Amino acid sequence: MTSFQVPGFQFAGVACGIKESGNKDLAVIFSEQPAVAAALFTTNQIKSPAVLCGMERMKKSRLQAVVVNSGNANACTGPGGFKDAEAMCAEVGLRLDVQKDRVLPSSTGIIGMRLPMDKVRAGIAEATAQLSPEALGDAAEAIMTTDRVPKIAHAQCRIGGRRVTIAGIAKGAGMIAPNMATMLAYVFSDAAISAPVLKPMLRRAADQSFNAITVDGDCSTNDTVLCLANGLARNPSIRRGTADAAVFERTLTKLMKGLALGLLEDAEGATKLVEIRVEGARTVRDARRVAFAVANSSLVKTAFFGEDPNIGRIMVVIGGAGVRVAPDAVEVAFDRVKVVRRGVAVGTREQDAAAVMKQRSFRVRIGLGIGRAAASVWTCDLSHEYVRINSEYRT
Amino acid sequence: MTSFQVPGFQFAGVACGIKESGNKDLAVIFSEQPAVAAALFTTNQIKSPAVLCGMERMKKSRLQAVVVNSGNANACTGPGGFKDAEAMCAEVGLRLDVQKDRVLPSSTGIIGMRLPMDKVRAGIAEATAQLSPEALGDAAEAIMTTDRVPKIAHAQCRIGGRRVTIAGIAKGAGMIAPNMATMLAYVFSDAAISAPVLKPMLRRAADQSFNAITVDGDCSTNDTVLCLANGLARNPSIRRGTADAAVFERTLTKLMKGLALGLLEDAEGATKLVEIRVEGARTVRDARRVAFAVANSSLVKTAFFGEDPNIGRIMVVIGGAGVRVAPDAVEVAFDRVKVVRRGVAVGTREQDAAAVMKQRSFRVRIGLGIGRAAASVWTCDLSHEYVRINSEYRT
Repeated sequence: MTSFQVPGFQFAGVACGIKESGNKDLAVIFSEQPAVAAALFTTNQIKSPAVLCGMERMKKSRLQAVVVNSGNANACTGPGGFKDAEAMCAEVGLRLDVQKDRVLPSSTGIIGMRLPMDKVRAGIAEATAQLSPEALGDAAEAIMTTDRVPKIAHAQCRIGGRRVTIAGIAKGAGMIAPNMATMLAYVFSDAAISAPVLKPMLRRAADQSFNAITVDGDCSTNDTVLCLANGLARNPSIRRGTADAAVFERTLTKLMKGLALGLLEDAEGATKLVEIRVEGARTVRDARRVAFAVANSSLVKTAFFGEDPNIGRIMVVIGGAGVRVAPDAVEVAFDRVKVVRRGVAVGTREQDAAAVMKQRSFRVRIGLGIGRAAASVWTCDLSHEYVRINSEYRT
Repeated sequence: MTSFQVPGFQFAGVACGIKESGNKDLAVIFSEQPAVAAALFTTNQIKSPAVLCGMERMKKSRLQAVVVNSGNANACTGPGGFKDAEAMCAEVGLRLDVQKDRVLPSSTGIIGMRLPMDKVRAGIAEATAQLSPEALGDAAEAIMTTDRVPKIAHAQCRIGGRRVTIAGIAKGAGMIAPNMATMLAYVFSDAAISAPVLKPMLRRAADQSFNAITVDGDCSTNDTVLCLANGLARNPSIRRGTADAAVFERTLTKLMKGLALGLLEDAEGATKLVEIRVEGARTVRDARRVAFAVANSSLVKTAFFGEDPNIGRIMVVIGGAGVRVAPDAVEVAFDRVKVVRRGVAVGTREQDAAAVMKQRSFRVRIGLGIGRAAASVWTCDLSHEYVRINSEYRT
């Protein structure tokens, strides 16, 4: 576990018995100062009461604590579930002497069961008593579900002559898809920045990271990306459109992209990390749509697993994605090996393409031949292990 | 193999060496009389030259022969591929003494390779010499790719006091999705009916059958549904809006639905046949969209395979399908076992729901609680076998 610290933030992760395995399942994150907050939530219409409660919290722009349980998503639990989410916040508020509406709740795990609130309360008592600036790793572990490894990232940059620190943790190994699907990420910084400046930055960074990865195309009820900034770096508050803003946004984006690719690398059953790069589209929206269609196709993903440069499956998805393409101008390449030129298969490059696919990571580059816009998304392959995990495990 | 006959139609299926396995790979269908024809083709923008050629043919409304090869899709083959499709028709025309533009070509199999035209020509010579009214089964076999069994259906009805016969064959075991995806179906009848009456009937019947099934959500370059009617039953020509039209359409729809469900039952690796029934939607379009989203979700399909009544995954798809729903009014049932009532999980019914899922076939019934429209689609589960077939086999 890391002992990386962000000034003014404390963490804890404990096992309170929500998970049958006895693994850590409750995390508390505490900001000694009320912190500026920005958040993105799932776009799924069916939202966990924890998300609904979190959305309420974000009407104010400062938070002081986050409480996350894993093992139970507190979703499809009705009004009782909403009370449970509020009670989690109240318990944390009581223990840390902060207002309950400065505490944001998150839940992840099985859908359709009420939280075991006695265990949750005991866990909160234990976690709040253990808070430590060095326990980021424990918190990262306590938010895991089917993840095999905790995902932690940190970075530093200089803003107005001051050193600014950012750290983040994330979880989510399946059900990952555009728009914050079954994924939790919490990012902390000591930067001085206002909420109106931070919010659009977080959205753009998410579009380049968590919103550009997919495992199986499904969106969850509980996804949350939260960024807290407590100002302790004492930099001049970052203003929109300045060089400082660009530096901070670049650092934040890189950190979030690292976390996002970490989720993919740990995705259920994944053996390959593949960038789908679409160029020559009419619009970025079109490029993303084709890229996600390829990235989510079961037939394409099983071909990745089989290390088979199956251009037919890719062409079928390109032509069927609902975006206008020029069939006679479509190009497809695996890394630098072109396999389709002007809509026609280049049969002779098959061996070379297969060699590219033997790598753990490669890029599929698709030209639509109709415009100048481009976009990348990242995906993984569909393996035997994915089916095993998802037919045997309950999410 | 069946020896079922449709007056005036002859069939042949031979092995000409396109498939390495030595299995049958070339079919010819011959109508002794020029037959009224209606066809539906893939909506994929990237179309096989065979489909482009077939679309040309349909500018006239009578056909006399169909030639289908399996093992090679003649797709992504450029202008040369188009010439090959035309040459197939010319060869059949020559052998059967019909105009080449009364011959419709189809191809299915591997994408991105030119057809071995010498083998194809020899196959056409052999097949046209073997034509027989009793060889429908040979033709059904010769159009198969990863299919395990040929799909054949037949039906009869009475129109204007005359017995009218319909028969059909179909193929397609993967890449099946809405709008004619990687699927070929040919339906023959001795009915007297005009093209303007037949065409909308075929479209509606397809919406209830081939357009209401899905295996993996991908659409192919080659899909074709063709219906030929030669008039030999000598019924009074079927007119739009009459009781006769209703009888014929009902029989045609039932036959096509039987073929479509046959494709699903034989789908790659499938162990379950599941109806996704969506009710209470604002529009039929909305209902179909939610039903297809559930039917195509890898997470839902692996849960079907695992016989796990995982309501979380279904709820996530319902809420994320891009269709307005009333989260507090959503209902989900497995056959008669309700597992979500008014948006809240009914925890006590889990055992009963799991028992329903042990059946080879069951229905998932979803209420969106927002309107009165409904639609059904049919899907299968996602098994280990699906991944094995699609990571090892080249389509």
